[in-house]
Amino acid sequence: MRIAYVQMKIGFGDKEANLRHAADLIAACPADLYVLPELCNTGYLFASRRQTQDLAEAIPQGPTCEFYAGLARRHNCYLVAGMAEKCAHSLFNSAALFGPHGYIDVYRKIHLFDEEKICFDPGDKPWRIHDLGMARIGMMICFDWMFPEAMRTLALAGADIVCHAANLVMPYCQDAMITRCLENGVFAVTANRVGQDIQGEKSLSFTGKSQIVAPRGVLLHRAGEREPAVFAMEIDPVLARNKLINSRNDLLGDRRPEFYRVSSNPDEPEPNVGRLRGGR
Amino acid sequence: MRIAYVQMKIGFGDKEANLRHAADLIAACPADLYVLPELCNTGYLFASRRQTQDLAEAIPQGPTCEFYAGLARRHNCYLVAGMAEKCAHSLFNSAALFGPHGYIDVYRKIHLFDEEKICFDPGDKPWRIHDLGMARIGMMICFDWMFPEAMRTLALAGADIVCHAANLVMPYCQDAMITRCLENGVFAVTANRVGQDIQGEKSLSFTGKSQIVAPRGVLLHRAGEREPAVFAMEIDPVLARNKLINSRNDLLGDRRPEFYRVSSNPDEPEPNVGRLRGGR
Repeated sequence: MRIAYVQMKIGFGDKEANLRHAADLIAACPADLYVLPELCNTGYLFASRRQTQDLAEAIPQGPTCEFYAGLARRHNCYLVAGMAEKCAHSLFNSAALFGPHGYIDVYRKIHLFDEEKICFDPGDKPWRIHDLGMARIGMMICFDWMFPEAMRTLALAGADIVCHAANLVMPYCQDAMITRCLENGVFAVTANRVGQDIQGEKSLSFTGKSQIVAPRGVLLHRAGEREPAVFAMEIDPVLARNKLINSRNDLLGDRRPEFYRVSSNPDEPEPNVGRLRGGR
Repeated sequence: MRIAYVQMKIGFGDKEANLRHAADLIAACPADLYVLPELCNTGYLFASRRQTQDLAEAIPQGPTCEFYAGLARRHNCYLVAGMAEKCAHSLFNSAALFGPHGYIDVYRKIHLFDEEKICFDPGDKPWRIHDLGMARIGMMICFDWMFPEAMRTLALAGADIVCHAANLVMPYCQDAMITRCLENGVFAVTANRVGQDIQGEKSLSFTGKSQIVAPRGVLLHRAGEREPAVFAMEIDPVLARNKLINSRNDLLGDRRPEFYRVSSNPDEPEPNVGRLRGGR
């Protein structure tokens, strides 16, 4: 299976040019699954919730979804792309999944970063896993990386590949994703932007370095910091289903959720079910 | 507050020399809190459960605890040290905490690595946090680092400093701990061994590089790979109580435990409490 990141340079608000840019990069590099950046049709730095509302679209009824659905059909591929979603009075920072037969599903960003809390509503639906036949995939958006619970949730639900649409401005994520893949035994494709968004006196620079990481925390490929790029590579998603890191340790099976909470009783001999209780 | 790692070279089974080595390193470098490696009185590579049984001691009644308690009293300091614990018919890979007034508590390793599963029983008590006045600390042992739930549990319970006693043989942990400190906003002191353990035809090499990491994922100091070392530095534990990474994002407050599970219903509009549910 060939998986790819699409590292884009995005013009704020210029959806037509941005979608054409995505289509050109995709056409240049055959793959089965492409991951595009967060908010890659509109740009990231919205001046206000009002402006977000103006640029957001319905998923899957809007023209951006129509465009990506056509692209996925034409290239007989899957693609995950970030976009601002309008749904009744809500606005979500979303990623949509498309396949050879069109639109499949949407993920609404669960952990919003900084001023996104002004422009968007937090995701209101649990994560889902999609079995594409070749692989089971899950979606995350940008700042979700900071919360180990995000990728853990996807791994526990059986994701082989985490499709990570990003607009990274802090320097930490790319290295942290190596730890995320190691601890969960999954592949991850992080698709980031390059360039800047400027709104009045505010500006944000995006850090590029889109990457593909393998289940044992091996960085397979990392893009440069400044230029748009598309890169595809062959992987075997089934490698992500072996969680054994030696003959006795299973990354998920060795979890001990009954202890993922703290005792206040110094003499407590046995674990109780407490506030941090989770389960496999 | 001065916190220190003690990176030791350990002779298998030679408790007297190992404890003297620990005492010499501690005497050479004043600190308020020392973290020593996992199983640092006995060595790591036990030939059998029987051999583990022979070298293990009761905590706090055994001579090793007596020695450390004396050391902590004499230097008016706290120290965390790994040792094999015998308790009724159980054997635990434990870390004990000592202070100016003697023995305080024991942590029994929750996630056992590889052949430890033969020689030890898995930890049977939840984590606890200890308020030393200067700082609140939690303990982890070696392979616990692989499970993000371990340090998350300590951070959610209020740990400022994670005392991480280790005998690392894989190359990943030191970098992963940078991610752990970043995602949880805590300090961590990882005390590792150098040198080898040899048992018949088996041998294990330990990777050194003991380190101190700050809450924003900043590596403050890292030791070399080969030599014993002790290193102390002044930190302000209170920095670990500010979990804001910008004016709107709180590392713990932004968790959304109601979503830390996966939906099987594609139309589900609202989160339910499910199997991955956790709570702050």
